[in-house]
Amino acid sequence: MKALLLAFLMMTVAQQAQAKLVTKKVEYRQGETVLEGYLAYDDALKGKRPGVLVIHEWTGVSQYEMKRAEQLAGLGYVAFAADIYGKGVRPATPQAAAKEAAKYRGADRSLIRARAAAGLDKLASLPHVDPKRLAVIGYCFGGTAALELARSGANVLGTVSFHGGLDTPNPADAKNIKGKVLALHGGDDPFVKPEQVAAFQQEMREAKVDWQMNIYGGAVHSFSNPKSGNDNSKGAAYNEKADHRSWQAMKQFFVEVFGK
Amino acid sequence: MKALLLAFLMMTVAQQAQAKLVTKKVEYRQGETVLEGYLAYDDALKGKRPGVLVIHEWTGVSQYEMKRAEQLAGLGYVAFAADIYGKGVRPATPQAAAKEAAKYRGADRSLIRARAAAGLDKLASLPHVDPKRLAVIGYCFGGTAALELARSGANVLGTVSFHGGLDTPNPADAKNIKGKVLALHGGDDPFVKPEQVAAFQQEMREAKVDWQMNIYGGAVHSFSNPKSGNDNSKGAAYNEKADHRSWQAMKQFFVEVFGK
Repeated sequence: MKALLLAFLMMTVAQQAQAKLVTKKVEYRQGETVLEGYLAYDDALKGKRPGVLVIHEWTGVSQYEMKRAEQLAGLGYVAFAADIYGKGVRPATPQAAAKEAAKYRGADRSLIRARAAAGLDKLASLPHVDPKRLAVIGYCFGGTAALELARSGANVLGTVSFHGGLDTPNPADAKNIKGKVLALHGGDDPFVKPEQVAAFQQEMREAKVDWQMNIYGGAVHSFSNPKSGNDNSKGAAYNEKADHRSWQAMKQFFVEVFGK
Repeated sequence: MKALLLAFLMMTVAQQAQAKLVTKKVEYRQGETVLEGYLAYDDALKGKRPGVLVIHEWTGVSQYEMKRAEQLAGLGYVAFAADIYGKGVRPATPQAAAKEAAKYRGADRSLIRARAAAGLDKLASLPHVDPKRLAVIGYCFGGTAALELARSGANVLGTVSFHGGLDTPNPADAKNIKGKVLALHGGDDPFVKPEQVAAFQQEMREAKVDWQMNIYGGAVHSFSNPKSGNDNSKGAAYNEKADHRSWQAMKQFFVEVFGK
């Protein structure tokens, strides 16, 4: 029996070794604006599969989001790290990032929604993607973008925000949300305050959305990004436990929404 | 290759079929009071394994908690549904249950702690249990009891509350908590109000506990118990999604705290 088990395990390892991660930059447009996203999928898998849109932090598509796309590809999904800002717009300092992000998350959310929708359309059009099985995840600024995409009535089965801003000038739009929502939140996040958390929950409640929120004690803003450092007093810091837990929660959520 | 896979799967099924669920009522004491719990474990498993204490809703140990203990045994743990009230004390009406529960969750929490501790001691003493790997879960009233046990400084690696009351007259005791805490909460629970949720989070925060809270939208009190009916307007009702999600969250939590 042990020999049989060993043979099976070796076979499984061999199959996994055949996984063929394909990654590439992909140019696309929203209106006249040229955007540049990052695509990742396992070319060893056959047939169409769920597609997951990944929306970036306030610095634009970076190594961090590319890594997340690759991890999602490793889970069997087609992942596309969307570009909200435009090709080449990659603010290098917090000041520049804050300035760029402010263009999108003010009182008018039409541009952030349009840019996120362009990414989703691109993802849906890809040959390996089942356009009926889409989800969106976002980090910080990207969490806000993911939620705005959902509020716009986009065709997503699931929306996951990792330490995203939960506020919106248009809470009534939550009635347009078609899929399920999972908000992953740092319990000590000074940028997403309790009032905002309460308002978000009330928004979801009133619109009868299928929502969940996981709160991670001891975690502040940007808890999933190792580049955030380890000083909670700065308001943004990496938290290994919350990173692991939130990723597990997302995986479980996807098993539920995609049925695999 | 397919034949090999089939052989392996059949072998796995055969192994599972060998699982031998043992269940029995177990009498034990706290002081002079005779208590009667319910034990469940898989006798086909070898060696010591983690022990999980299950604390009941306000009606005392019932079929519901026995079923949960059996499910936990199915996960490979030794599960013991503790009795807080005393042998034979099984209130049959909500009025009687409220009256009985009130004896334990008032301003003095020493009795609920002592009764929960007696259950934990019994569990830890069982031959299949690794006394260094213990956790406690509780439902409604039992969630309160589980948290009070943790606050007493009990030797538990993890504490899980399912729609439990989160209040305590002794928030400063949170500093005694040795393990991790996971609170699973219905987002529309009218009996565990937002002020109580906020106070609990603040309690955990101040004591630097490793805590998490998952909030399930659309779920009210007692969301994991099918006997709660399906009328949210009553304040307590079964919610299949929240039941499934909270159980998955508990399983993931145990993988983390027990390392298996």
